[in-house]
Amino acid sequence: MYDLTAMLRSGSDKCLYEQIYEYIRQEIREGKLRPGERLPSTRSLAEYLQISRSTATLAYDQLLSEGYIASRPYRGYYVCQMEELYRLDTGEECDHGEESPIEREMRYVCDFSPTATDMSQFPFSVWRKINKNVLSEGSSGLFAQGDAQGEYSLRETISRYLHSSRGVNCSPQQIIVGAGNDYLLLLLEKILGRHVRIAMENPTYKRAYQIFNSFAYEITTVDMDEAGMSVEGLRQSDVTAAYVMPSHQYPTGVLMPIGRRLELLKWANEAPGRYLIEDDYDSEFRYRGKPIPSLQASDTQGRVIYIGTFSKSIAPAIRVSYMVLPQVLLERYRQQCYFYSATVPRIDQKVLEEFIAEGYFERYLNKMRKRYKEKHDLLLDELADFGADFIVTGENAGLHLLLTGRRGQTESDLVEAARAKGVRVYGLSESLVGKAGEQPGSTVLLGYGGLGLEDIRKGLALLRQAWL
Amino acid sequence: MYDLTAMLRSGSDKCLYEQIYEYIRQEIREGKLRPGERLPSTRSLAEYLQISRSTATLAYDQLLSEGYIASRPYRGYYVCQMEELYRLDTGEECDHGEESPIEREMRYVCDFSPTATDMSQFPFSVWRKINKNVLSEGSSGLFAQGDAQGEYSLRETISRYLHSSRGVNCSPQQIIVGAGNDYLLLLLEKILGRHVRIAMENPTYKRAYQIFNSFAYEITTVDMDEAGMSVEGLRQSDVTAAYVMPSHQYPTGVLMPIGRRLELLKWANEAPGRYLIEDDYDSEFRYRGKPIPSLQASDTQGRVIYIGTFSKSIAPAIRVSYMVLPQVLLERYRQQCYFYSATVPRIDQKVLEEFIAEGYFERYLNKMRKRYKEKHDLLLDELADFGADFIVTGENAGLHLLLTGRRGQTESDLVEAARAKGVRVYGLSESLVGKAGEQPGSTVLLGYGGLGLEDIRKGLALLRQAWL
Repeated sequence: MYDLTAMLRSGSDKCLYEQIYEYIRQEIREGKLRPGERLPSTRSLAEYLQISRSTATLAYDQLLSEGYIASRPYRGYYVCQMEELYRLDTGEECDHGEESPIEREMRYVCDFSPTATDMSQFPFSVWRKINKNVLSEGSSGLFAQGDAQGEYSLRETISRYLHSSRGVNCSPQQIIVGAGNDYLLLLLEKILGRHVRIAMENPTYKRAYQIFNSFAYEITTVDMDEAGMSVEGLRQSDVTAAYVMPSHQYPTGVLMPIGRRLELLKWANEAPGRYLIEDDYDSEFRYRGKPIPSLQASDTQGRVIYIGTFSKSIAPAIRVSYMVLPQVLLERYRQQCYFYSATVPRIDQKVLEEFIAEGYFERYLNKMRKRYKEKHDLLLDELADFGADFIVTGENAGLHLLLTGRRGQTESDLVEAARAKGVRVYGLSESLVGKAGEQPGSTVLLGYGGLGLEDIRKGLALLRQAWL
Repeated sequence: MYDLTAMLRSGSDKCLYEQIYEYIRQEIREGKLRPGERLPSTRSLAEYLQISRSTATLAYDQLLSEGYIASRPYRGYYVCQMEELYRLDTGEECDHGEESPIEREMRYVCDFSPTATDMSQFPFSVWRKINKNVLSEGSSGLFAQGDAQGEYSLRETISRYLHSSRGVNCSPQQIIVGAGNDYLLLLLEKILGRHVRIAMENPTYKRAYQIFNSFAYEITTVDMDEAGMSVEGLRQSDVTAAYVMPSHQYPTGVLMPIGRRLELLKWANEAPGRYLIEDDYDSEFRYRGKPIPSLQASDTQGRVIYIGTFSKSIAPAIRVSYMVLPQVLLERYRQQCYFYSATVPRIDQKVLEEFIAEGYFERYLNKMRKRYKEKHDLLLDELADFGADFIVTGENAGLHLLLTGRRGQTESDLVEAARAKGVRVYGLSESLVGKAGEQPGSTVLLGYGGLGLEDIRKGLALLRQAWL
C-alpha cells in the first residue's frame, strides 16, 4: 500500500481529514504520487491509520472535488493527470503518446492517439489455451534459465516469419530476443560501442531519440524529404550510423522508395563500421499495394541492424522484440555481451512461438489489417469532406495519418480547438527533436488504431465543428 | 531451422554426407553453432536438403562419434560443450555457473553447481491456476502497456514483502521492476551517469563485474576480510560507489556483520553522491540463527540502492527483479529514464503479485528453506568425514559453501581430480576479477541447490575417492 506512515503528525492543530487531504495533495504536487497511480481504498486507509472510514472518505471527497484524484466504479481512486502541475515540477514534457487509458478516458471524448492499438479482436481464448497447454506440458524445464539470445526454437520461428513476410535474410543465430525495443537498444549500445555518431530523421520517433540521447551518442538530425532521410544531409553529417523507419516513418508516414534505400545502403557500404538501424515497427499494416520488403532485405553487405516488435502487432503487453544483427556485430555481441541474461521468460517465449507456429499470428494479422483498413478508409472518406483546406499525408500504412491545415491555423491552434471540443489530436512538432526554434507548422497526427468506427465518426464531427 | 543453405556446394568431389558433416563441424568449431543448440532432426534436414534420410543420419553419426554433438531420446541432437575449442576461439572463459542443464547432464555424474536451484517442489499447479485465473479475469486491459516502473499493485506487494522479510524501508514509488538484474543495472547506469568509479569485492559475482565492465565504469577491486569488503581498502580506492552482497557474499559466503555495515554506511555518508549497491540475491535462504535484515534497513540517509530478484527465490525463468532507489536517484530516474518502457509483461506481473499476495510465495520459501537446509546439513555432515584437511566456510546461508584443501593440492588439482571422477566442482578463482597473477589457492565451491540428497551423497563419495 501507498506509504502513509508520515501522513499523520501528532500535535497538529488541523483536523484528521485535513491532514490526510493535505498530505496526499502534496504528494501529488511533488510528483511522488503520479498520474494514474491508484490510492488505497477508504476502508484500507481507515484501517491502516486507525481512523474512521468517514474521515478517510471526507479527505478523498475533498481531493475529488479539487480534481486531484478521480474515482472509477469498482476500481477505486486514481491520481489525475495534471499536465500543468507536472510540467512545472519536472521541467519535462509529458509523454503524450503513452498516457494511460484511464487518464485518456477521463479527459477526452475521443482520442486520436497515434500509438493506441485495437485489442478487441485479440483471440484471448486462443492465447489462454496455448498458455494453459504450455504450462501443463512443460514441467521444470520451462522454469529454468533459458538461452540469453532467446529460445532457439522461437528464433527459428521469428526468422521464418521475417523471411516470408518482410524479406529479411537471417539465420536464427543472428536474432536476439529481448523484452522490448528499449532493452535491445541498450544492448546495441554495448555492441556498437559508447561513442557513436548517429543520424536521425527529423521529425522522428521521440522515444528512440530520448534513448539514444541517454547514451553517450552524438545525435545529428537530418531533414526529410518526400522519400525519407535526405542522403545529402546524411553525407554532410559525419555520422557512423543512421536510424530509419523505411516502411512507415514515424511520424511522417513516409514510405521510403527503393531508390532512396539503395542510396542509404550505398552510403553505409562506403566506409567500414557504418550501420543502418532499421526500426520496422508497424510494417505489418499496409493497406494499398503490395507489401514492401524491409531495408534489410536489400542489404548484401551486412550493414543493416533490423529491429521489430510484437508489442505493436500482437499486444502492447507482449514485451517481445527482436533484433537481427549482421555477422560482424553478432561476433561482437558474443564476445562482449554473452553475459547479459535473457529478459523474456521461457514460458512467454514458448506461448508466442506456438501462437506464431500454429498460424494464429498470421490469421490475427490478416484480421487486424482488414480492421485497421476499415478505420483508415473511413477516416480518409470523412476527411475528404473537410475540403481542400486540409491535406492528408502518410496514409495507406501504419496506424495514423497526418493532416495539414491550410487556413492559417497553427498546429497549436488546431490542437487547442480540438481539445476544447473534447477531442485529442497530436501536434507534429511533438516529434521534432534537437534544434529548437522550428517555425510552427500546422500539421497534426490522427491515430485511428485504438478507435472504433463510431468513435472516428464522432471525433471527426467534433473536429469539423472545431476547425471549420 | 538452422541455416543450411550454404551447406551443400555443387561440384564438390566429396560425398554428400561428408559435406554435411564437415559443414556442421566447421560451424561448431567457429562457434556459429553453440553448445546446447539443437540441430534439425534428420528428417527435416533430409527434407530441407532434398537428400535421403540415411545420408543425414550418416552425417550425424559421424558428428556423434567425434563428440561434436549428442543425442537425447525424443529430444533430438544438440551441440556438445567443448571447452577447449570454445576458449580457443573466443579467448573468453566459459561461464561455468550458467551452463545449460543439457550440457551438465551429458558430462557429469554430479554437478555441484553454485547457481543451480531446486524446482522439484515448485507448486506448478498453483502457478497454472493463478495464470489461468489472471488470463480469464483480465480482458484487454492486461494486454495494454503498463507502468514503466512496474504495476503499482505489484510494487505495493513487493514493498510489503521487502519490509517484512528484509527490513527494507521503501514506498512502492521507490521500486522499479525489471526483467532481470542485468536490465536493472543497465537502467542504473543511466541513472548514476556514465563515469562512475565503483568498488567491487574480490572475489565477486563475475556477471556483475562483466556488466559494470561493459559500462564505462572504472572498477576498483577491494580485498575482503572475514567481515566482507575492507573499508580501509575502500577508503584508499577513491570510488563513488561500492557493490556489495552483505547477506551472503558470492562466492565467499561471508555474512557482513552489523559493524562493517555501519562502517560502509559511514563511508557513504561522508561525501555527496556516494552510493552502496546492495545485491541481496539469495538472502531468502538462511539456515542458522535469525534472519539478518538488509543493509538498506540500516540506511537512514538514502545511500543504498537495493537490488533483489525472484529468479533465485521462485524460478530462474521468472524474469522479475526489483530495484529500490533512494529518493534522490528516484528523481533522477523520473527525469532521465521515464521513457524506458516496462520490460515485464503485465500478465506476468499480475501472476507474480497474486502468487505473493495469496501467501504461496511465503509458503514456498519456507518449504525451500527447509529443503535446502536438509541438503546443506547433509553436505556439512558428510564433509566432516573429510577430516581436518578440508576446511568449510561460507556455510549456513545461500545455496553453496566453500571447501579449502590443506594437503597441498591447488584449486585446479581439486577441480581436475573431481572431474576425472565425473564430479564438477568450481574453483574459487573463477570469481576473481581484475588483477591477474593471483597465487593459486586451494578453494572450491560446492553448490547444493540443484542436487538431491542422494546426489550429494554419491557426489561426495566420489570426491572422497578423488581427493583423499
